[in-house]
Amino acid sequence: MNLVTIKYTAKIPKLNHPILIEGLPGIGNVGKLAVEHLIETLKATKFAELYSKDFPPQVFINPDGTIKLVNNEFFYWRAKKKGQHDLVLLTGDYQGLSSQGQYELAESILNVLQKLNVSHMFTLGGYGLGREIKDPKVLFATTDQRFVKETKKYGAVFKKNEPGGGIIGASGLLLGLGKLRGIAGTCFMGETPGYLVDPKSAKAVLKVLTKAVNLKVDYSRLEEKAREIEYIAQQLNEMESMVKEKPEDIRYIG
Amino acid sequence: MNLVTIKYTAKIPKLNHPILIEGLPGIGNVGKLAVEHLIETLKATKFAELYSKDFPPQVFINPDGTIKLVNNEFFYWRAKKKGQHDLVLLTGDYQGLSSQGQYELAESILNVLQKLNVSHMFTLGGYGLGREIKDPKVLFATTDQRFVKETKKYGAVFKKNEPGGGIIGASGLLLGLGKLRGIAGTCFMGETPGYLVDPKSAKAVLKVLTKAVNLKVDYSRLEEKAREIEYIAQQLNEMESMVKEKPEDIRYIG
Amino acid sequence: MNLVTIKYTAKIPKLNHPILIEGLPGIGNVGKLAVEHLIETLKATKFAELYSKDFPPQVFINPDGTIKLVNNEFFYWRAKKKGQHDLVLLTGDYQGLSSQGQYELAESILNVLQKLNVSHMFTLGGYGLGREIKDPKVLFATTDQRFVKETKKYGAVFKKNEPGGGIIGASGLLLGLGKLRGIAGTCFMGETPGYLVDPKSAKAVLKVLTKAVNLKVDYSRLEEKAREIEYIAQQLNEMESMVKEKPEDIRYIG
Amino acid sequence: MNLVTIKYTAKIPKLNHPILIEGLPGIGNVGKLAVEHLIETLKATKFAELYSKDFPPQVFINPDGTIKLVNNEFFYWRAKKKGQHDLVLLTGDYQGLSSQGQYELAESILNVLQKLNVSHMFTLGGYGLGREIKDPKVLFATTDQRFVKETKKYGAVFKKNEPGGGIIGASGLLLGLGKLRGIAGTCFMGETPGYLVDPKSAKAVLKVLTKAVNLKVDYSRLEEKAREIEYIAQQLNEMESMVKEKPEDIRYIG
Repeated sequence: MNLVTIKYTAKIPKLNHPILIEGLPGIGNVGKLAVEHLIETLKATKFAELYSKDFPPQVFINPDGTIKLVNNEFFYWRAKKKGQHDLVLLTGDYQGLSSQGQYELAESILNVLQKLNVSHMFTLGGYGLGREIKDPKVLFATTDQRFVKETKKYGAVFKKNEPGGGIIGASGLLLGLGKLRGIAGTCFMGETPGYLVDPKSAKAVLKVLTKAVNLKVDYSRLEEKAREIEYIAQQLNEMESMVKEKPEDIRYIG
Repeated sequence: MNLVTIKYTAKIPKLNHPILIEGLPGIGNVGKLAVEHLIETLKATKFAELYSKDFPPQVFINPDGTIKLVNNEFFYWRAKKKGQHDLVLLTGDYQGLSSQGQYELAESILNVLQKLNVSHMFTLGGYGLGREIKDPKVLFATTDQRFVKETKKYGAVFKKNEPGGGIIGASGLLLGLGKLRGIAGTCFMGETPGYLVDPKSAKAVLKVLTKAVNLKVDYSRLEEKAREIEYIAQQLNEMESMVKEKPEDIRYIG
Repeated sequence: MNLVTIKYTAKIPKLNHPILIEGLPGIGNVGKLAVEHLIETLKATKFAELYSKDFPPQVFINPDGTIKLVNNEFFYWRAKKKGQHDLVLLTGDYQGLSSQGQYELAESILNVLQKLNVSHMFTLGGYGLGREIKDPKVLFATTDQRFVKETKKYGAVFKKNEPGGGIIGASGLLLGLGKLRGIAGTCFMGETPGYLVDPKSAKAVLKVLTKAVNLKVDYSRLEEKAREIEYIAQQLNEMESMVKEKPEDIRYIG
Repeated sequence: MNLVTIKYTAKIPKLNHPILIEGLPGIGNVGKLAVEHLIETLKATKFAELYSKDFPPQVFINPDGTIKLVNNEFFYWRAKKKGQHDLVLLTGDYQGLSSQGQYELAESILNVLQKLNVSHMFTLGGYGLGREIKDPKVLFATTDQRFVKETKKYGAVFKKNEPGGGIIGASGLLLGLGKLRGIAGTCFMGETPGYLVDPKSAKAVLKVLTKAVNLKVDYSRLEEKAREIEYIAQQLNEMESMVKEKPEDIRYIG
């Protein structure tokens, strides 16, 4: 077994210059939530699994009692009408644990994408602000300057020096290593507090992305998840303020 | 020397579609205790040693003054009557130190198992609850749904979403990577507090396992160890409650 | 992709036994600041980029919205008059993350240098003292004793047992591994507090280096940066002393 | 460059079934001090340097201003009279940083030893007790039971279950991996507090070793170092007790 193993679980699909949409676990799980929502609502078809020694040595247990070795998974979806593109969708349980593993995983993914003649990549992630956000903006960065103007039209925002630390992980590496191979791409980053998984930010990212790829999707499942998380966040806030109040009470009594 | 080296210390045995029973160090050392007990009581024969650069750079010192490089060891046992299976037993001093090493060790072990025509794997481990347990249950997970019903008959329990983090280490990887190769298997996890080595949990696991492989074993050595550990645990508890009481006394006096 | 990939972005220049000047990130960023200043003021030409899996999995975002995979970069500059040498200049975003990666990066850089017939290396870095310094001295160490006397003439200082821990990272390894290949070199280390980037120490290093390679450079940009940093350092000092004063005030009142 | 590179700095000596004596940095630097003392007093000849990517990326600075890449070094010494053996001596700046590196280094060293027809290995180290010791004993462990009786005659002690954790690092691995290749060896471990370098323990180890290899050496340099360390230890103790006394004084006054 090499560091990365690709297992095709269906015949490799012949797609017409498809576009990649990647969303792996990361801050607020923004990218993963967005791509999983797309896979579900578009009813995309799984065609490959990616296993790696740089993932944790771990199996998950399915609800039926069977095990599943942690992996990443590739799906495809065929364009339904003019103006749309065939899509390749990538999500998974983990990113690589080590720096070197992350590079090798990105290279392996690019190998798959080149076999499929992928013409453009959209990588999705979160941008953690460490504070609550009413209306998350979607930042972007791209491999080529010619995409900048167009991407702004879709509602994505470019702020100089943001994110200050650049993009870390698969969403950045796929663009960086892809550029060296001549594959173009754009990264969308949804602003997120970064404390909890963030379906609201995932929705904001999808709103921009769907304009870019000419799709219409229903957001009701994602909005439901967002309400659940909002409820949890509220309860955590209340618990925290109770904890803060107590010592003051005690001091008052004492 | 490769990352993993297998050294056959006896002629490779010709076994009749044997079953693997694996128990390496882990939480409560449940798996290791169980397999070591089987090896002792069945008087199984060692036939191979596995060395790895992913183990610590360490030798142990035997009671006679000689050294032993840390390793894993393979044993076999031949079925004595109808309805039993030839067994391959695997235990050892360590699991791999790194994630990648754990994957490579599991692959190397699977290579040995395929040479021996192993037909099923039982991997044994602990499931740490972080609290005391009167009567440890034995959870399970398996590579194929067809084993679920049968495994419940042996007394193993399936609880949805438990263990929540899946199975980490050799017991999970052998199943996960084995499944990709078409080797079936089942993991038994004995509930354990996880603070000390846990012969009681190991006995619970063996009770389920021996039904699955149609064996009868004497548990007296394991029960003796369990009594020793219970005594140590009790003493630790007493020491802890003494430490806790003291400051209260002081407060009372003051 | 190997651990290290060199991408030539221009025709490999034919240089006349050039001298390497290396300055990568490190304590006070002394070496990096110095080499970047040289590249700017000499208007050196970039000819190669070095990418490595041992750098962080990260892209930076340029001011125009495009991304840049983190790397190291090689530049060259041709001698303008007699007594000068052709120069190869090396700087970059990161040094290797791991020990082994640092060795491999240094070997890869030496391979490039041998192709270019580099005759001598000057590696630049900082020597952290952990206290403020009025007038930073420049220490040195070299591959061959015959350079010691000459190097002192340029204003560099040799203090026995300093730095006590030797030289860690690229500036040391290029000399150490270079010596094994028969490539000579000298390391200049500018004294620095080590808290902030230190353009003042970088200037001190350049003053020695330019004597060694017979160059004249304008320091106005570097001096401007030094004033900015001095201003920041002053403000940090004031903030710190305010924080220290407060508790005393409170105690006084209480 | 491989993970390990051996550079012969002199013609490979033809030795008559020599004995290896290894002492690399470790607890109390006992092994390193002992072997360095032997090399000095026997005036042994250096014949090889070992470099490794698993050492830190570091050069030391010699007193004459030149640099030295960190390494391990091999020396030899020819027997002077009957009953003595030719010796190969191994010491150095570091052991490997990683577990895997330690295994690879031990394998590379064994390759050199097999070329030299080494017949027995004595590996030297410290056994940290974490408390002061008047008269350090020398423990041992060996590859073969036939050496146990003989080794006790030289004054080495065998205590069951000591050291409890076995032997970690080169001194253990050379024996463990050597045994798999059929090379016999014995490890001597000098008891040491383990806080500071410990020439007293090194002398105790040498007293046993020299009986085993039929050598007489002068210990004056080592005894001098031991007195220096004793003086430093005493001063540290005094400083510590002063620090401890202060708060009591304050409490008394208050």
